[in-house]
Amino acid sequence: MLERFKVPIEDRVYVPLEKARSATEAVFKHAGLDDAGAKQCADVLITNDLRGVESHGISNQLRNYMRLYGEGKLNPRPDIKIVRETDTTALVDSDGALGIHVAPDAMRMAIAKARKHGTATVAVTKAGHLGGAGYHASLAAKENMIGQAMAGPGGTQTLPTVGAEPRFGTHPVAWAAPARNQPPFLFDIATTQVAGNKIQLARRVEADLEPAWIAGMDGEPILERVPVPETYYQLPFGGTRENSSHKGYGMMSMIDIMCNTMTGVGAGFLTGGGGQVFVATDIQAFIDLDEYFDWMDKFLEGLKNTKPAKGHDRVLYPGLSEWEETQERTKNGIPYHREVVEWFESYAAEIGVDVDLR
Amino acid sequence: MLERFKVPIEDRVYVPLEKARSATEAVFKHAGLDDAGAKQCADVLITNDLRGVESHGISNQLRNYMRLYGEGKLNPRPDIKIVRETDTTALVDSDGALGIHVAPDAMRMAIAKARKHGTATVAVTKAGHLGGAGYHASLAAKENMIGQAMAGPGGTQTLPTVGAEPRFGTHPVAWAAPARNQPPFLFDIATTQVAGNKIQLARRVEADLEPAWIAGMDGEPILERVPVPETYYQLPFGGTRENSSHKGYGMMSMIDIMCNTMTGVGAGFLTGGGGQVFVATDIQAFIDLDEYFDWMDKFLEGLKNTKPAKGHDRVLYPGLSEWEETQERTKNGIPYHREVVEWFESYAAEIGVDVDLR
Repeated sequence: MLERFKVPIEDRVYVPLEKARSATEAVFKHAGLDDAGAKQCADVLITNDLRGVESHGISNQLRNYMRLYGEGKLNPRPDIKIVRETDTTALVDSDGALGIHVAPDAMRMAIAKARKHGTATVAVTKAGHLGGAGYHASLAAKENMIGQAMAGPGGTQTLPTVGAEPRFGTHPVAWAAPARNQPPFLFDIATTQVAGNKIQLARRVEADLEPAWIAGMDGEPILERVPVPETYYQLPFGGTRENSSHKGYGMMSMIDIMCNTMTGVGAGFLTGGGGQVFVATDIQAFIDLDEYFDWMDKFLEGLKNTKPAKGHDRVLYPGLSEWEETQERTKNGIPYHREVVEWFESYAAEIGVDVDLR
Repeated sequence: MLERFKVPIEDRVYVPLEKARSATEAVFKHAGLDDAGAKQCADVLITNDLRGVESHGISNQLRNYMRLYGEGKLNPRPDIKIVRETDTTALVDSDGALGIHVAPDAMRMAIAKARKHGTATVAVTKAGHLGGAGYHASLAAKENMIGQAMAGPGGTQTLPTVGAEPRFGTHPVAWAAPARNQPPFLFDIATTQVAGNKIQLARRVEADLEPAWIAGMDGEPILERVPVPETYYQLPFGGTRENSSHKGYGMMSMIDIMCNTMTGVGAGFLTGGGGQVFVATDIQAFIDLDEYFDWMDKFLEGLKNTKPAKGHDRVLYPGLSEWEETQERTKNGIPYHREVVEWFESYAAEIGVDVDLR
């Protein structure tokens, strides 16, 4: 993550991993989830926080989720149904569950089918927020498969290239692949220039946005550095047409087609979307694992040993710095913004749940 | 394609579709391919030319291909072997064939497996140039599936984000999806800021490159508009880190892993790469085709009816302008640069093949 998005040192409260985890489980249970569901949801948020992906951890998400459960917009005890199924595919109706509640099981279903048949794709409908695509893709990597996860949310945020009306959300996608001696590969992005939640985060830490990160309400990309404005639209990655924003726009479109059109949900900008897709591909269907791991370690080593350009310390590969952050935070705790910890404590007190975060 | 890449009007020679096709088939046959192979190769190049993707048509590719056949670096009569196979996957050794020669059959194999089981992934090794990923992805769309195609070439062109040594080629990827009343969706890109062959094209038509399209040999992105320099590196899409080039870099990495590491070829920058992957996903495994087509037409209509930003005529969706170009060129011929037609005629004369392009 760019430096400017980090919580300023003076605002940090370091919360030990297991305290953060049990407090999060407790509030999910209070929202009505069963033990396994609460455990699963907490694990997604805490894993994101450990990786340093604050935009998809407790800070930005937990209060939204609790509000939506409170308003009855998320179903804590979903009746999950398989609508259609083949050897290698399934369409799953998640009955209004939170994405982080049902997506891991959907990926596990894809993994089981891929183990038997080689590759598999499971799609989920009527689900809430995916909570970042990376967690779910990684489940496949842990089983020695290539994992892909993506979600097609609504369409009120992001403009198509040269458009002046929004047609997409942040339409996240992730791919994960295992390694033997190197930290695993995890490529996990919003297909916008910047994750929607990072804009909230920038607002909280009073960071500027870069040129061509957002557009005005007339659709024109804002080409200066600016603080987060009151109203704005997001742009597909690339930002402007000259800078390949049609590639971000195309990725969003592909994600929307697979998540929403292929599943019968209907385009995000017409229906609010909510489809999610999980793909698992078994490496051993192609080559032996030993051979794969030999090459994978060489590939990742080669990337991180690339000579950096002037002014840069080192070259990263996707997932490397998040893995390093995970080691650091597992040991020393997760540096939440004090405002987040205060919210968590006061929310827990309000609902009568005991939490201990300090 | 940006206006500047088009062949200037005064340099255009319009060649009728069927003349271009039979001349191209003739030179492939002369290179040693059998009738079906020559027909297949010509169809890929001509389809790209019809779509207006000159970078992957006759202009930039045919003479390279002929040179490589001449030098014995491509095998015109490959002995294609299935190395490993499951219900839904295959690893295919293409025995040094040109990518456009073997990739369509690999995608057809994926389609047949997906028809039976829901989804399938076929990987090809030891193949030459893919000739653009879009053609192959479209084969699945024509069979009412979602198609994906990608290739992991060598690693001498493109820098990782903030790197000063190249690790990738242009690592193309495409997704295609069918529609009923609207022109089909076809998202077909290089994961660089600009397709490598477009830089050759820019050189030929003396067009400038945009800021952050390329980097100097020290790895620093060139942030001005410049004519094509003698030597340069390419950048992942996004261009600079601030502008999300890590997203292009991550896509390239994922493509390299699936095409080269998962297939045992080994990283493009270590081995020269050459792996290719084709994925077909049967829409009917998820929903009925009628329902899919209803939503798909609404999705594509919604995109193209988006109000454009100031200074723009209309919003396109991936594949739309290429489809329009195909209608136009099928009727009026393909506008090749006269230098290309002259090369084609003199090459054909040299090898003693009769061609009629005018």
